Amino acid sequence: MNWKAVLKILGKILIAEAAMLLLPIIVAAIEGEDTYFGFLIPLLILFALGVPTYFIKANNEEKKIYAKEGFLIVAFAWILLAAIGAIPFVITKAIPHYVDALFETISGFTTTGASVLSDVESLPKSILFWRSFTNWIGGMGVLVFVLAILPRENSGIIHAFRAEATGPTVGKLTSKMGATARILYAIYFALTLIEMLLLLAKMPFFDAVTTALANAGTGGFSVRNASIAAYDSVYVEVVVTAFMFLFSLNFNIYFLILTGHFLKAFKSEEAIAYTATVLLSIFAIAMNVYFSSVTAINSFGDAMRYSAFQVASLSSTTGFSSIDYNSWPTLSKAIMLFLMMTGGMAGSTAGGIKMSRLMILGKSTSADIRRMAHPREIVTVKLEGEPIHQETITNVRVFFTTWVAILIICTLLISIEDYGDFMTNFSASLSCVSNIGPGFNLVGPAANFAGYTYFSKIVLSLEMLFGRLEIFPLIILFSPATYRK
Amino acid sequence: MNWKAVLKILGKILIAEAAMLLLPIIVAAIEGEDTYFGFLIPLLILFALGVPTYFIKANNEEKKIYAKEGFLIVAFAWILLAAIGAIPFVITKAIPHYVDALFETISGFTTTGASVLSDVESLPKSILFWRSFTNWIGGMGVLVFVLAILPRENSGIIHAFRAEATGPTVGKLTSKMGATARILYAIYFALTLIEMLLLLAKMPFFDAVTTALANAGTGGFSVRNASIAAYDSVYVEVVVTAFMFLFSLNFNIYFLILTGHFLKAFKSEEAIAYTATVLLSIFAIAMNVYFSSVTAINSFGDAMRYSAFQVASLSSTTGFSSIDYNSWPTLSKAIMLFLMMTGGMAGSTAGGIKMSRLMILGKSTSADIRRMAHPREIVTVKLEGEPIHQETITNVRVFFTTWVAILIICTLLISIEDYGDFMTNFSASLSCVSNIGPGFNLVGPAANFAGYTYFSKIVLSLEMLFGRLEIFPLIILFSPATYRK
Repeated sequence: MNWKAVLKILGKILIAEAAMLLLPIIVAAIEGEDTYFGFLIPLLILFALGVPTYFIKANNEEKKIYAKEGFLIVAFAWILLAAIGAIPFVITKAIPHYVDALFETISGFTTTGASVLSDVESLPKSILFWRSFTNWIGGMGVLVFVLAILPRENSGIIHAFRAEATGPTVGKLTSKMGATARILYAIYFALTLIEMLLLLAKMPFFDAVTTALANAGTGGFSVRNASIAAYDSVYVEVVVTAFMFLFSLNFNIYFLILTGHFLKAFKSEEAIAYTATVLLSIFAIAMNVYFSSVTAINSFGDAMRYSAFQVASLSSTTGFSSIDYNSWPTLSKAIMLFLMMTGGMAGSTAGGIKMSRLMILGKSTSADIRRMAHPREIVTVKLEGEPIHQETITNVRVFFTTWVAILIICTLLISIEDYGDFMTNFSASLSCVSNIGPGFNLVGPAANFAGYTYFSKIVLSLEMLFGRLEIFPLIILFSPATYRK
Repeated sequence: MNWKAVLKILGKILIAEAAMLLLPIIVAAIEGEDTYFGFLIPLLILFALGVPTYFIKANNEEKKIYAKEGFLIVAFAWILLAAIGAIPFVITKAIPHYVDALFETISGFTTTGASVLSDVESLPKSILFWRSFTNWIGGMGVLVFVLAILPRENSGIIHAFRAEATGPTVGKLTSKMGATARILYAIYFALTLIEMLLLLAKMPFFDAVTTALANAGTGGFSVRNASIAAYDSVYVEVVVTAFMFLFSLNFNIYFLILTGHFLKAFKSEEAIAYTATVLLSIFAIAMNVYFSSVTAINSFGDAMRYSAFQVASLSSTTGFSSIDYNSWPTLSKAIMLFLMMTGGMAGSTAGGIKMSRLMILGKSTSADIRRMAHPREIVTVKLEGEPIHQETITNVRVFFTTWVAILIICTLLISIEDYGDFMTNFSASLSCVSNIGPGFNLVGPAANFAGYTYFSKIVLSLEMLFGRLEIFPLIILFSPATYRK
C-alpha cells in the first residue's frame, strides 16, 4: 500500500473542498448573514489538514497508485469531505446534532437528497446554498473536480477515477484523464447554466441557482418545503422534468454530440433502452393514475404531467417531488420502486444499479442459460456492438449481489427500532442505496428522515455512500485484509 | 432433440399419476363419498395418454437424454400433472372454475400451499386428501418417484433428475440413480410416517395423515380453515415445528446418519449456516414480538413458541400458520420476508433460493472483491471443504439474477389489477416463487388468494412452477431456440 500517494491526493481534495467553502461565504456576505464563522472553521480545518498532507515528500515509486490505492483514496475522500462539510450545519445551529448534520451532508454529496429537515425555508440562504452545492459537487465527483483543476497527474490516478465513476465502464473518454475531466466538467457546467437561465423565467434568482445545482447533481435538495410543487408552475415542472432526464444520460452522449458523432450518440444501445424504459413507465403510470379511482387526477394531461415528473425524478434518482404519490395505486408504486432500483445511465450523475449494468446482467444471463441447454454452442455477449469481457460480467454480477445484500441488511437494521412500517423502511433503504431521497409512507415526498434514531441514520448514511461509490471502495476500506502486510 | 425419449419418460410419469389417483378413490370409498367420478375421469385420461406414449418405439440413439431433454421432460411433466390433477376439483365442484383448480393443483404439486379456498372444512375428505397428497408427491419430485418404482433407466435420465432436484448440486448420491431414488423415498416415507404417528396423539386420524403429508412436502395445505392454530395444542405445534425444520434439511444428512457418518453429517457447512440462521431468527423475532407493544403476546415462552413455528414454517417454505403474524412489528416482518427468500437447504423438499446457493453467492462474491483489490492473488472458493467449480458459481449467479427478475416482474404483473397493496402483491409474488403459501396483508395467514383475477392467478401459478423447478426447465420450455433444428 502506497500510503504517501493516498495522502497526497487526499491533501489536494481537502484543499479543493476548502476552496468550495468560499462560495457559501460569498453568499453569506451578499445576503448579510452571520453564518461566516460556520464556514470559516471547516475551511481552516481543511487547510490545516490538507496543506501538510499535500506536501508530503514521496519518490516516484511511493507515488504510484494501483487499484487498491484508487479505491481507498475515493473512500477516504468522500468520508472526510462529508465529515468536515457537516460542520457548518452544526455551528450555525441549522442542524444542531452532528449525526443529523452528517446524514444531511452525506445525503448532499452522494446526491441522495434525503433530508432530516422539515422546514428548510427558515434557514439562512448561505446554508441552503451549501446544501444544494454539495449535490452539485457530488454529482460529477470530487476526483473529477480535482483532476479538472489540477491537470498534471500521476497516470495511476485512473484507478481512483474509475473507482469514483458511475456504472461499469468509464467508456472511451479515459485515455487522457485531465482533458477528459475538463470536458466532463464543461458539459456539466454548461447544462447547469442553461437550466438556471430557463428557471429564472419563473423563479427567484436564488431558487433558480440552487434548484439547478441540485438538479444537475441529481441530488434533489430543494430550498422550498414543498419541493418543486411550491412553484405551482407547469413551466417549472417541464423544465425540471427535462433536465432530470438529461442529467441521467451518459455524458459520453453529449461528448459524441459535441464532436459531431450524432449517429453514434443516437444509436447507443443503453440510451435507447433507458429512454424506452422511461417512456414506457411514464405512459403506464399515467394510464394507471388516470383510470384509478383512488387518485383525484381527472385529466389525462395532468396524469401525464405528474407521471413524467415522478418517473424522471426517480429514474434519474433526483428525488424532487411535484405531488404526494403515496396515494397512487399499487401498480404505479411498484413501477416507481422498480425505477428506484434501475436508476439512470452509466457515466451520468444518477445513482441506482444503472441501465448498462442491468443490460449486461440480462444479456450475460440469457447467454449462460443458452449455454446450459446447448453446451457446445459459442455465445458471445455484446454491448454497444462490442464483446463484453468476462471480467466485466463478473464485476457486474458481484455488484448486483452485493447491492441486493446491502439493501436487505440495511432494511433489517433500520427495522430494529420500531419506527416505520415495512414499506417505509424498505423504500428508505432503497432510496438511500440508489441515492434518490424520498421513499414511501413515512419517508414519502411530503415527509423526511428526521424520525429515525441516530443508529438508523448512520446505517442509511453508510448506505448512501455504498450507493454513490458503487460499493467496492467502501468494502476495501472496511476489509482488514487491506491493512495487513 | 430426442422427442421419443422425452415422450417415453412422460408416458411413465402419466401412468404413475394415474396410480396416485387410486388413493383418493380409496378414501372416497371408505368415507362413502360420491366423488369417485371426479378421480376416475382424470385417471382414464392419464392412461389413455400415458400408455401409448410409453410404448412408443425408439432405438437406443433416440432414447438418449441430454441436458436439454432433461429440462424439457421435467417442465412438461409438471405442467401435465397439474393440468390433469386439477380435474377432480372441477368435476366435484369443490373448485368450480378450472383456472382456480389449476392454481390450487400447481400450488399443491409445487409444495407452495397457496389456496383459493376460504372454507376447506366443508369439502369432501377425498378431495382434501388429494389436495394434501399433491404436496407430498411434489415435495420429493415426480421423477424421483418414477425412478424409485422403475429401477432400470437409461443413464441420461440423470439430466432430468438434476433438473428436478432442489439446490445447486445433487451431491454425491447421484452415482446410482435408481438406488438413490429409492433411498430418498424411503427416508421421506419413514419421516412422514413418524410424524403421522406423533400427531395421532392429539389429532383425528384423517387430520394426522393429511397434515403429515402436507408437512413432509413442505407444502402446507391444511384440512382446517385456521391451519395448525385450529388444533389449539402446544404439542401439535411443537411436533409440526420440529418436522417443518427436519424436512427443510438436506436429505444427504439423513443418508449420512443412516450410513453411520455422524461426524460428517454434523459438520456440514450448509447445515450449520442454516440452523444458525433459523435459531437467530427465532430468537430475534421472539425478542421483537415480546418487547413490542403492538402484539398481545406477554410471556416470553409464548413469544418463542409462535416465533419458532413461524420461522420454521417460512424458512422451510411450508406455510402452515399458528397465529396471524400481520400484526407483528416491522423487524419481525422484515426477517420473515428475508427467510421467505432464503428458503431451506439444497436437496430438501423446501423451496426458496436455498442456503447453499446463498453461501456460494456470498463466498464467490467476497472472493471476487478480494481479487479486485489484489489482482495477483489466487483465491479459491470452497464449500463443504471442496473447491466450487466456476461453472457452479456462474449457474448460481444466473439463478439469482433470474430469480430476482421473476420476483419483480410478477409483482408488477399482479399489480395491474387494482387488488392488493404493495406489501400484499410483493409478498404474494415472493411466497409463490419460494413455494411458501401465505404472504402478508390480503394474502396473510388468515386470508387466501381467491381475490386475484384469473390473469394474476395464472401469473402466480407460473411463478410457483418457476420456483419449484428452479427456473431453467421452464425457460428452456418457453425458449423458441429449443424447437429449432
